[in-house]
Amino acid sequence: MARVHVVLVESKYEGNVGAVARAMKNFGVTDLRLVNPCKLGAEARRRAMHGLGLLEAAKRYRSYARAIGGMDLVFGTSGVDTASEKKFLRIALTPRELAAKLAALDGEAALVLGREDFGLLNEELRRCDALVTIPADPEYPILNVAQAAAILLYEIHAAKPSEGRGRRKASGMEKDKMNEALADLLAVTNYPPHKRERTRVMFRRLVTRAEPTTWEFHALMGSRAAKTIRRERGKITAKPRQKA
Amino acid sequence: MARVHVVLVESKYEGNVGAVARAMKNFGVTDLRLVNPCKLGAEARRRAMHGLGLLEAAKRYRSYARAIGGMDLVFGTSGVDTASEKKFLRIALTPRELAAKLAALDGEAALVLGREDFGLLNEELRRCDALVTIPADPEYPILNVAQAAAILLYEIHAAKPSEGRGRRKASGMEKDKMNEALADLLAVTNYPPHKRERTRVMFRRLVTRAEPTTWEFHALMGSRAAKTIRRERGKITAKPRQKA
Repeated sequence: MARVHVVLVESKYEGNVGAVARAMKNFGVTDLRLVNPCKLGAEARRRAMHGLGLLEAAKRYRSYARAIGGMDLVFGTSGVDTASEKKFLRIALTPRELAAKLAALDGEAALVLGREDFGLLNEELRRCDALVTIPADPEYPILNVAQAAAILLYEIHAAKPSEGRGRRKASGMEKDKMNEALADLLAVTNYPPHKRERTRVMFRRLVTRAEPTTWEFHALMGSRAAKTIRRERGKITAKPRQKA
Repeated sequence: MARVHVVLVESKYEGNVGAVARAMKNFGVTDLRLVNPCKLGAEARRRAMHGLGLLEAAKRYRSYARAIGGMDLVFGTSGVDTASEKKFLRIALTPRELAAKLAALDGEAALVLGREDFGLLNEELRRCDALVTIPADPEYPILNVAQAAAILLYEIHAAKPSEGRGRRKASGMEKDKMNEALADLLAVTNYPPHKRERTRVMFRRLVTRAEPTTWEFHALMGSRAAKTIRRERGKITAKPRQKA
């Protein structure tokens, strides 16, 4: 996984700079580089929220060339439609393709976002190793710079090798147990034998599609319907119950 | 593809409402519903940019229940970490899972975003058919509402069945021609025969990985190196050239 550095070129609205800092904090990217930014005041700080530390630690550069110094790879963002394939300078990756590349690489990677009005200039684009464009409605494909940054950082974060976050899916063994429990329930409830197989298949497919979490598995199994029915029947027929 | 309606519940900052309108315009979603919003003034209009029409056409509701009236499916957004799987009320889809579901469905779907500070209340979450959470850094997973909206709308847009947008990939036939051209070039330049096969394989793999566009194919083929070399040799050996 490459280390990502965000480079903002000549930002005009301090609120956007703050919002980019917040998005970086949200997605675990810390190094912000500002090329000739506008004045950063209260609005930038307000929008940064918990990204304030990162905003205050942002490095400032007089030139684009210096801001991308030391980077192994430079990815420029471009909102321009590449419907004309001949503008090869503008042919771009999707955010997901970018994220996949970054996940497969090592080293330092710059993600460069341009001015709110003119984006990146051609000479700045020419120094990029690849471009990224966020696919959007052709009628109005120009995103706010902080929203664009959030989308790109979201994709980069999503492509990170998982660190065991997220809920654990029920294992194959747990799913088998659910299927067995259903079979048992069908048997004990005198479900018509000729329909059992079809119902079991249906249930198995449903379980697969639903992708239950471990917790859901335990919640479902906890109901132990078949056991309960047997116990109730035991009471009715006064059959002595075995201790577990 | 379900039709998406964006519902903002008790937004506190007009700038966010404007920014959500802009993101909607960027991703081709038009119906904005506001439940008891803050006052919308110049800042909201400024941030909406080309989404201004959509912001001005936004419907206002006194209650959440009315805003989601007529919806076939209601998706609520939640920034709360679901590390504890027991909070099943909060178990959520990823934005990509949401987009896949919407792409596979028909009808009207509400995408509900809550207050900047408290998000959606439990009773509001309970009325959702499913929740969506944007995976983020556990240290600070709370996104700005307009950035969250942009990410969700981006994913929904990306999952739309393609309408022939995007650049056309070079066809298999075009790729074959490139490979033939290389083989020809290797032959005419007296490339060592025992290395030719390996170089051809390498080139074929490279072409596959690079996924050239039709335009790049023509640009590459246009160089016609082998032809040029033959022509130059013809000049040297004074062999009469055939007219094309």
